[in-house]
Amino acid sequence: MNFSIDQRLAAESFPLGELSLCEVLLYDDSRFPWLVLVPQKAGLVEIIDLSDQERTALMDDITDASRALKEVTNCHKLNVAALGNQVRQLHIHVIARFENDPAWAGPVWGKGTRVPYEEKAHDKLMKKLKAALNLG
Amino acid sequence: MNFSIDQRLAAESFPLGELSLCEVLLYDDSRFPWLVLVPQKAGLVEIIDLSDQERTALMDDITDASRALKEVTNCHKLNVAALGNQVRQLHIHVIARFENDPAWAGPVWGKGTRVPYEEKAHDKLMKKLKAALNLG
Repeated sequence: MNFSIDQRLAAESFPLGELSLCEVLLYDDSRFPWLVLVPQKAGLVEIIDLSDQERTALMDDITDASRALKEVTNCHKLNVAALGNQVRQLHIHVIARFENDPAWAGPVWGKGTRVPYEEKAHDKLMKKLKAALNLG
Repeated sequence: MNFSIDQRLAAESFPLGELSLCEVLLYDDSRFPWLVLVPQKAGLVEIIDLSDQERTALMDDITDASRALKEVTNCHKLNVAALGNQVRQLHIHVIARFENDPAWAGPVWGKGTRVPYEEKAHDKLMKKLKAALNLG
């Protein structure tokens, strides 16, 4: 079984590049600056499906994604989560939260309707995130 | 500043013991078997506030808590999350989810009202969790 990104995740996001273990995506919801990390190995569902070494790499990727997102957005809080109730493929959300965002102080999942980025805002954010993540 | 568990977290949970970095609590909501990990260091808000070594220990604790919870509950899915939008002290939720639980397939936070355990069920679960976590 070869690795590929779940179709629903792929359809609702833009690829930013590869970190040490994960492919990193920008989730296409302009209401919340939101990265998704997907470990590049087929058949994963839970964090405990990873080896010790892979879990260390995952934590490194979470750290890099969190720092980059905080640097770019100047957010008030980070939300980091592996849920997978809807999309089973293991993926980790790293979300920049603001005290005036439309879901504060609740979680973002299932809150209202996704608002895709407009092209200009999207291009600008992708560029800033790639620079902060040291991705070409 | 000395470490102590946030008052709201402490009021809504039962202490299970100490893992490598974290104090582990059973959250007092019988609708969802739910552990909370609290790194035992004052002033933490984000995962990126930890040192590299502490982050490795945190991942070890998440792994141990996840395995124990899965073993004890035989759950369909694990949800692992550091949110902190309401309680700022860094804490990580490790939650056993079932496809017929009252919040499925949404997140548990902010869903309905907490239902405290009855004493017998609570004692039994605490015992099983302590055994699975190798805690006294």
